[in-house]
Amino acid sequence: MASRSRLAPVLRRIGAPSLRKSATTINPAVYATRHISSTTPRRFRDSSARAAKFTTESYPELKRDSRFAQLTKEHVDYFKGILGKESAVIDGVTADAAEDEIEPFNLDWMRKFQGHCKLVLKPGSTEDVSKILKYCTEKSLAVVPQGGNTGLVGGSVPVFDEIVVSTSRMNQIRFFDEDSGILVADSGVVLEVADQFLAEKGYIFPLDLGAKGSCHIGGNVSTNAGGLRLLRYGSLHGTVLGIEAVLPDGMIVDDLSKLRKNNTGYDLKQLFIGAEGTLGMITAVSIQCPKRSKAVNVAFLSVESYDKLLQAFREAKTQLGEILSAFEMMDSQSQDIFHKVKENKRPLEGEHPFYCLIETSGSDSEHDNAKLEKFLEDIMTKEIVTDGVVAQDETQFRALWSQREGITETLGHWGGVYKYDLSIPLKSMYQLVEDVRTRLESMGLKGDTDDYPVVDVVGYGHMGDSNLHLNIAVRGYNKKVEEALEPFVYEWVSKENGSISAEHGLGLTKKKYIGYSRNDNMIEWMKKIKKLFDPNGIMNPYKYI
Amino acid sequence: MASRSRLAPVLRRIGAPSLRKSATTINPAVYATRHISSTTPRRFRDSSARAAKFTTESYPELKRDSRFAQLTKEHVDYFKGILGKESAVIDGVTADAAEDEIEPFNLDWMRKFQGHCKLVLKPGSTEDVSKILKYCTEKSLAVVPQGGNTGLVGGSVPVFDEIVVSTSRMNQIRFFDEDSGILVADSGVVLEVADQFLAEKGYIFPLDLGAKGSCHIGGNVSTNAGGLRLLRYGSLHGTVLGIEAVLPDGMIVDDLSKLRKNNTGYDLKQLFIGAEGTLGMITAVSIQCPKRSKAVNVAFLSVESYDKLLQAFREAKTQLGEILSAFEMMDSQSQDIFHKVKENKRPLEGEHPFYCLIETSGSDSEHDNAKLEKFLEDIMTKEIVTDGVVAQDETQFRALWSQREGITETLGHWGGVYKYDLSIPLKSMYQLVEDVRTRLESMGLKGDTDDYPVVDVVGYGHMGDSNLHLNIAVRGYNKKVEEALEPFVYEWVSKENGSISAEHGLGLTKKKYIGYSRNDNMIEWMKKIKKLFDPNGIMNPYKYI
Repeated sequence: MASRSRLAPVLRRIGAPSLRKSATTINPAVYATRHISSTTPRRFRDSSARAAKFTTESYPELKRDSRFAQLTKEHVDYFKGILGKESAVIDGVTADAAEDEIEPFNLDWMRKFQGHCKLVLKPGSTEDVSKILKYCTEKSLAVVPQGGNTGLVGGSVPVFDEIVVSTSRMNQIRFFDEDSGILVADSGVVLEVADQFLAEKGYIFPLDLGAKGSCHIGGNVSTNAGGLRLLRYGSLHGTVLGIEAVLPDGMIVDDLSKLRKNNTGYDLKQLFIGAEGTLGMITAVSIQCPKRSKAVNVAFLSVESYDKLLQAFREAKTQLGEILSAFEMMDSQSQDIFHKVKENKRPLEGEHPFYCLIETSGSDSEHDNAKLEKFLEDIMTKEIVTDGVVAQDETQFRALWSQREGITETLGHWGGVYKYDLSIPLKSMYQLVEDVRTRLESMGLKGDTDDYPVVDVVGYGHMGDSNLHLNIAVRGYNKKVEEALEPFVYEWVSKENGSISAEHGLGLTKKKYIGYSRNDNMIEWMKKIKKLFDPNGIMNPYKYI
Repeated sequence: MASRSRLAPVLRRIGAPSLRKSATTINPAVYATRHISSTTPRRFRDSSARAAKFTTESYPELKRDSRFAQLTKEHVDYFKGILGKESAVIDGVTADAAEDEIEPFNLDWMRKFQGHCKLVLKPGSTEDVSKILKYCTEKSLAVVPQGGNTGLVGGSVPVFDEIVVSTSRMNQIRFFDEDSGILVADSGVVLEVADQFLAEKGYIFPLDLGAKGSCHIGGNVSTNAGGLRLLRYGSLHGTVLGIEAVLPDGMIVDDLSKLRKNNTGYDLKQLFIGAEGTLGMITAVSIQCPKRSKAVNVAFLSVESYDKLLQAFREAKTQLGEILSAFEMMDSQSQDIFHKVKENKRPLEGEHPFYCLIETSGSDSEHDNAKLEKFLEDIMTKEIVTDGVVAQDETQFRALWSQREGITETLGHWGGVYKYDLSIPLKSMYQLVEDVRTRLESMGLKGDTDDYPVVDVVGYGHMGDSNLHLNIAVRGYNKKVEEALEPFVYEWVSKENGSISAEHGLGLTKKKYIGYSRNDNMIEWMKKIKKLFDPNGIMNPYKYI
């Protein structure tokens, strides 16, 4: 714990006026592009990567639904007729589409899920989507709507031969109002493109996540993405004002309201937010965007226990109030792995049990700096945190954020990673990581040499949203580890009334586990909703519920 | 327009350090209770008030649905058996319940809608509600869920002999977490009670409206209330984390999540938010509450045109940024009426075409004052506003807010008021008020003497949400005025892609007009949803869609 004599140099470090001055000059346009780089999922990182398994091999219990027709030349000809453009159809049915043409749509970026899709359609308009789905319903053809394909739960790639309907050609910004900050855009607009458009107008997209360079806003809404700034700007259920969607029978539901308030009947769009393409396909989104903050600061701090981390969070909420825009937590293990793989310099000397990254965004840099400085001094004096740095320029800003955002990528370094995205009440949130670590150790599964399947158990995530990412880095996928983890993790979360999917969705991987977070009545009603919208079950089958 | 020579005294007035100093000492606890007083709907303002008409007289086209059974002694005995307590049943079926006992449940606070209800049930628990609704489904008895009965569209009182199921006895706070700010409470908790509970913990309810002293949070959620601070804290679709509701067949849907993120299946609770009791009855709510701001300021300003008002709003969003918590607009006519009726002193000298009330809430009073002062100086110097005052103590704070919140009550002074709650894109928002005023004048309906039915046409509302309250103060309800207003107003709003109900809901009054804001596909789907949840149509019949 920091003694009084140790405090002085530390405080200078986090409180140096020169740092603060630079930190406040961060250019919003640069800020807009800041964490794309290394954390953005890229489809194929390495041509020599291991061959991806088919999902049908990993999940042998899945059987193709015989109600769905097999694709024929007649079907393909129809779609080519609708879409006109040769490039709008990737045809592996009647022609031999090159494998590398179709693979990006069949395989997720982690190379964990791979389907047997032979036909990819790229509609250019809502009307195209309507014609496609209407025909698919008539002909009993199954469909997987796909955006940027950056999901983590196998929701955006086919399992068998479902047709991929990609939003990639629907990428126009349709409307923006500079007074209200309301944006209307096609579902295929890349999140970062939308955000850069907004940056030029002095606004910000109310969602930010590592995959922003690839993910599509339609996919974000379909999966109710949470991300880094939910703490500040709230969930998409609050910020999305309207959607345009096509139902399985081809009906276009135009609920593309540009109004902040609209109490005229059931808010149907809400069902599509987080439905993961199982009710219909979102073709456009209307969203309320906040003003972009002129001043942004980032501090990176170390704390000696989870209790102290909780205290730091409480103080940040109280003292930073309206300018707090992110409070991210990382444990020692997550940082160890990050530095082992990246081999870069740690922002703080020594190793500490926990770290947090605190971001502020406000309209007045002097005020924000004063608030942050006062807060940092206070939590140092109270010995809640032991050490810390504040970014003084864009490079440092990015470097500090990469300590948090770069974790995901480095965890797979040894061969694989088991990922859990959980909501757990704050007080007990980290206990799960410790319990899992102890469990795997006591079962002889975790160790430092290749004799052990598990490298380490790490916890990090969005403290501000009670959202823990529990990750188990492994030297290869292993049945014993899987049996040690499941249903243990889900039962643990269920006992704490948590959620087995905070922000990643159900997709394929969690379809059968929904019962740990939802009771039978809820599931029964979800099935009724599914049946009402998609009676033939053609939308994104084998997944969700 | 303010000349340079006039500016000096004005600036002193709004910029005087003494004012600012006091303004920042506003006690949050007092602040919590601030605008209850005169604007809170009271059920019976005046015992000599005109006799209220029955809704069946005002809407003769409504016919009782013959599928519903008539209430019998057997039914009443069953309910008495369930609820036990004598006081939980107001029985006008087998006993002669005093009229003044049943009337508060049969009549809305404006005395505009009156039903023929003969039975009021006051369940004490979710299980009670479940038993009641199950029985009502079995026996084909129609039901009106009722909270504080403060609605404005006739949604919360019966039309015929529907049973009122009141949430008044379900008024416990079930859970609060001081780290996360998550509150779980029964649906019958009065909004102000919830807010005062939160004030003691340093938190604030993310919704605030004039009726807070009477309205129930279950009713707020059922009607998706918007209110004064949506601009800052967002809509209930974003802040409500979970609900507990009872479906018409008695099934309890426990979706009372205490998690900020929970992506496990369709977000069914969203359908109940704003469903106005037509799908089931909300019995409890889980909601994310923000930290209460330590510093609150209010400024009241005059502007010479609607264009200048728009400029002031743009500047407030940019300059006040994260501390802006309300931006309310009022026209000259609304203030005239307020002062004629209240006979109090105007906060600013002279009369001005428009006024706005700007509230800031932040965590540091010095910073907030500095931001507000700079902003006010800037918009005065740029001649965007012409005059202004800043509240220097609680009395002034309340007085300034009452200039906005007191309008509603005073409008009925001459005998009646036609009320429209509309969302309209900001740029054209006020044009509607001018068009309606011109129309009524040109039709010879508006004038200063008793020969004219219309006293004045006023516009005020939540500028920050593009939400206009268009009100027509009349000397009595009049067919000619009604014909001049409708469908004219709805057609005008529809042409601008606005909403005919921003925050008040559809209720009885707007059921037939939903087509002006929603297309046929949407309405068809809403009807399917209604049919799915309430196949027998027993929940709040004759209303909504």
